[in-house]
Amino acid sequence: MLNRIISEIQPLSKSWYDKAWARLDNLSKPKRSLGVLEDIAARVVAVREEERPVLDKKAVFVFAGDHGVVAEGVSAYPQEVTGAMVRNFLKGGAGINVLARRAGAEVSVIDIGMKEDIRDLERLVRRNVKRGTDNMAEGPAMTVEDAEKAVNVGIKIALEAGDQGKKMIATGEMGIGNTTPSSALFSVLLPADVRDVTDKGTGLEDEAIRKKAEVIEKAIAKNRDTMRDPLSVLAAVGGLEIAGICGLCLGGAARRLAVVVDGFISSAGALVAMRMCPAVREYLFFSHRSYEKGHRMLFEKEGLRPILDLDLRLGEGTGAAIAMQIIEDALAVYNEMATFDDIDIEPGA
Amino acid sequence: MLNRIISEIQPLSKSWYDKAWARLDNLSKPKRSLGVLEDIAARVVAVREEERPVLDKKAVFVFAGDHGVVAEGVSAYPQEVTGAMVRNFLKGGAGINVLARRAGAEVSVIDIGMKEDIRDLERLVRRNVKRGTDNMAEGPAMTVEDAEKAVNVGIKIALEAGDQGKKMIATGEMGIGNTTPSSALFSVLLPADVRDVTDKGTGLEDEAIRKKAEVIEKAIAKNRDTMRDPLSVLAAVGGLEIAGICGLCLGGAARRLAVVVDGFISSAGALVAMRMCPAVREYLFFSHRSYEKGHRMLFEKEGLRPILDLDLRLGEGTGAAIAMQIIEDALAVYNEMATFDDIDIEPGA
Repeated sequence: MLNRIISEIQPLSKSWYDKAWARLDNLSKPKRSLGVLEDIAARVVAVREEERPVLDKKAVFVFAGDHGVVAEGVSAYPQEVTGAMVRNFLKGGAGINVLARRAGAEVSVIDIGMKEDIRDLERLVRRNVKRGTDNMAEGPAMTVEDAEKAVNVGIKIALEAGDQGKKMIATGEMGIGNTTPSSALFSVLLPADVRDVTDKGTGLEDEAIRKKAEVIEKAIAKNRDTMRDPLSVLAAVGGLEIAGICGLCLGGAARRLAVVVDGFISSAGALVAMRMCPAVREYLFFSHRSYEKGHRMLFEKEGLRPILDLDLRLGEGTGAAIAMQIIEDALAVYNEMATFDDIDIEPGA
Repeated sequence: MLNRIISEIQPLSKSWYDKAWARLDNLSKPKRSLGVLEDIAARVVAVREEERPVLDKKAVFVFAGDHGVVAEGVSAYPQEVTGAMVRNFLKGGAGINVLARRAGAEVSVIDIGMKEDIRDLERLVRRNVKRGTDNMAEGPAMTVEDAEKAVNVGIKIALEAGDQGKKMIATGEMGIGNTTPSSALFSVLLPADVRDVTDKGTGLEDEAIRKKAEVIEKAIAKNRDTMRDPLSVLAAVGGLEIAGICGLCLGGAARRLAVVVDGFISSAGALVAMRMCPAVREYLFFSHRSYEKGHRMLFEKEGLRPILDLDLRLGEGTGAAIAMQIIEDALAVYNEMATFDDIDIEPGA
């Protein structure tokens, strides 16, 4: 499935961009004076290949997974919090629930790699590939086969969202310890020095951050020989929810959905997707720059610009939900503003 | 009126901030992990002095004025565009109309200093103080008396908004040439070198920007002797719509409204208000950093942080309307998220 989907992802067409810019430049405002909003609108037109795209059906997909590497003491929270927060998501009380409601987006929670087997919550989407990764400091986090299965879970969810008429989908995640594999993926795939992409996560102090970086360095060294391509890197030092996010990006692009990428961990999944398929990049809307310092390296090295910069470090999809509103603002401007033809002013500068 | 209103503006109370932070730190997320959203929520609680503030009634006030200094060739557009755009606002086709609809905010357009006397549009709020400023390169833009009248217009509009139950108000403006007085105000009041706060406005080329800076330097030199306090600076090198915005900030703060400041020109009005009354600062939510380079100087020198950074340079209140949504996102998080008491997790880090 993975290779077939990658082959279906098309580069965006210049002619759709040109159509979008022709309209944007005729709206009753100085040219390009709505800055990033105009860039967003033009790109959505090219993603959707629609004259007047409307992104009214939206969903946030929160992938939950656990991480064997927490045995090394890399997180401020115990592993049980993954399950407790998943219950909170399904009761509607978490940050992502509140912000997705504000954005008019549905929230789905997927057990793709949780340690705890939650069976009493029927709204939980049960697609568990493996009950938590293995400790990557001692060997690969998962087999390449499991990594591919987890990517395929994300792909299928995106395809189903497309079939259900969703037009904009967002990535989200929950997984105690998951900044650690994310930092490892940034280090290997950008590439970047481990110390430049390792930070406090949900709340480590300086000494603990140094220890976390050592664990990541050890994991990368330990798995060096098995990392040959993006999928094997993901298997070696990634996570199941990160693989799901990677798949969501690919599947969303294959179905011409606007894919909104949340923060640091989601970006790690998106980076794996971009390394598997460079054309996916134009379908991705990076929602925000997180407080996690390594996130900055991604934007600098890849020449990307996040929509927001609000020092968020919660994850779950919260930044993506906020950015969805701004993407819809951009489309509203594109679809609803009067043109210079409608009013009596020359376009000017 | 001006002095009375300034005396009514109270510094925000630490006890209300403490109440807000106690709740924020007990929401089911790692402490401070929603970054700027939490800062916004805490400040709104302190502004409103309400346990659970809701900013459901919102309005954007677009002040329109003209500028005698356009005779010096400082704008890419002719002065008639001010009136044409005001007509566009009242027909609902401009950027601010679209974005205010998205934010659920009413739009009011105020003729505070337009050259054109528009009488056929009944929804135009007619509070004209003067039919455009005089050319500040040759003398004061207006008398101190007219500047005070224009500030009072803004104050009254804010007080009326408060009386009508509005809880969040935003500044907006339209006025061909009005980046020129704004740059002059930043230069005098920050203070900053004219060249560091002068940029392309709606679309000048490099040579025209140099000329614009020379005009501003000339205006400042010409009026040097009359500039003794913030009001006389506003009269000498400001604008009528900028004075209205200054008044809106002051009146809004006096009535404990959250005041959302749009871009470069609105910030000039807000800066005059802050120089008249330092306590007003905490009531102001600076919505975005504009593409206009001088805007950066404001944030650096005043230690302020804008909510958004989207390279906007349209004005009208567009950036403020977008930021209103994020301020409401912050309040939704504050009011609606589950606490650690509700779910079964220890607060942790």
